[in-house]
Amino acid sequence: MTQYIYGKNTVIESLKGNKPVYEVYLMKNAKDDKVLSLAKAKNVKVHIVRHKDELTKLVGSVVHQGIVAAIESYRYYSLDEMIQAIPKGKQPLLVMLDGLEDPHNLGAILRTCDAIEVDGVIIGKKRSVSLSPTVAKVSTGAIDHVKVAQVTNLSRTLDELKKQGFWVVGCDLNQSQDYRAIDYNMPLVVVIGSEGFGISRLVKEHCDMNVVLPMTGHVTSLNASVACAVILYQIYNSRHPLK
Amino acid sequence: MTQYIYGKNTVIESLKGNKPVYEVYLMKNAKDDKVLSLAKAKNVKVHIVRHKDELTKLVGSVVHQGIVAAIESYRYYSLDEMIQAIPKGKQPLLVMLDGLEDPHNLGAILRTCDAIEVDGVIIGKKRSVSLSPTVAKVSTGAIDHVKVAQVTNLSRTLDELKKQGFWVVGCDLNQSQDYRAIDYNMPLVVVIGSEGFGISRLVKEHCDMNVVLPMTGHVTSLNASVACAVILYQIYNSRHPLK
Repeated sequence: MTQYIYGKNTVIESLKGNKPVYEVYLMKNAKDDKVLSLAKAKNVKVHIVRHKDELTKLVGSVVHQGIVAAIESYRYYSLDEMIQAIPKGKQPLLVMLDGLEDPHNLGAILRTCDAIEVDGVIIGKKRSVSLSPTVAKVSTGAIDHVKVAQVTNLSRTLDELKKQGFWVVGCDLNQSQDYRAIDYNMPLVVVIGSEGFGISRLVKEHCDMNVVLPMTGHVTSLNASVACAVILYQIYNSRHPLK
Repeated sequence: MTQYIYGKNTVIESLKGNKPVYEVYLMKNAKDDKVLSLAKAKNVKVHIVRHKDELTKLVGSVVHQGIVAAIESYRYYSLDEMIQAIPKGKQPLLVMLDGLEDPHNLGAILRTCDAIEVDGVIIGKKRSVSLSPTVAKVSTGAIDHVKVAQVTNLSRTLDELKKQGFWVVGCDLNQSQDYRAIDYNMPLVVVIGSEGFGISRLVKEHCDMNVVLPMTGHVTSLNASVACAVILYQIYNSRHPLK
């Protein structure tokens, strides 16, 4: 299956990566030596287009910067594949996004997950953002490195993971401890709720612990990708203390 | 001066806040009891409009959810006002954004700054995002609580702050230490670079320390609002250790 991606940096990253790039579409006025030489080196055909409408047809009305590429579709992994791929000896760490809606948040979260060895991201099939050209662009290439699984039922997936020895940490305001008070040195799934509504009731009932970030101001929540990153870095730091 | 804000939650937050709200514009099909009762309690006139074009005229083509409010313009603070307002006995903490372009990032950063007692955010007058309805919406009200100063020259501002006893921490890949290795218990300005280019050369020359987050994956940087939050929480935690 083919998927279109857009934006100069995104296309350059994908030409540098291992995933097949089928074709590049470049506007005449956006010709770029780096893109041309990378495409040539990989034997990827470059089409010069004359009008931006030709690109809009492929990717919709987005800021494509005059460059689009056709690549192999993003692939979702199964939960089993994700767990099998965890390196031996590594303390497992998964992230579950419960109803996240904003592709910018998913892209930023994938970047963070790539940075600190998260073994995979689990999203629901319904009422959730999925992998898309916008997610790819915002992720600046992380989408090609972080495994994403799309599951039908988040709470059943948590049941399955618990059977396999995972502990579930929810990020939620209610009945929670300070996120610095937890020992994170066990196989973990970190659950992040949706931008508007937090973690849904059923999923919440599956959390073994709830953590909260200290917040002393007026707003009641942080941006979802921000909260996710602060907690993931806390986990990374507790597992890899500074020597 | 009048400024327009949009989106249900943003308007509700502003009706609950202390800043003057002049008028509310509500589409017929977006009538909302909470908005109507808050507006009534504050004696704010509500105009029912029949077509969304009337709202688009005020705020442009954005997802306004059928609700717009005219409020007192966002106010920029001077550097002096910002510093004068720092509570006595509090260890000062400022954030400088060097060329940040994305209003979503600024909105998310304001939310984080509100959460952990940042005393103000400094942005440049040129080549930088400024306060706007989109920033207001993404900030979920933090824009009304965090002081923002717009300055002509970032490096001269850093000179001024250094004279007043501030230390400058840049977040940059080059010649940097792990962000966990620093003692943050002094008056600080944290400098975050732009999404595409990081910190500019002149500003970088003014940094007393450069810090970097550990990143073990493939991507070379985190989202700007994410990196900013991880560092700010580290500073907050080092100043307010868990008892």
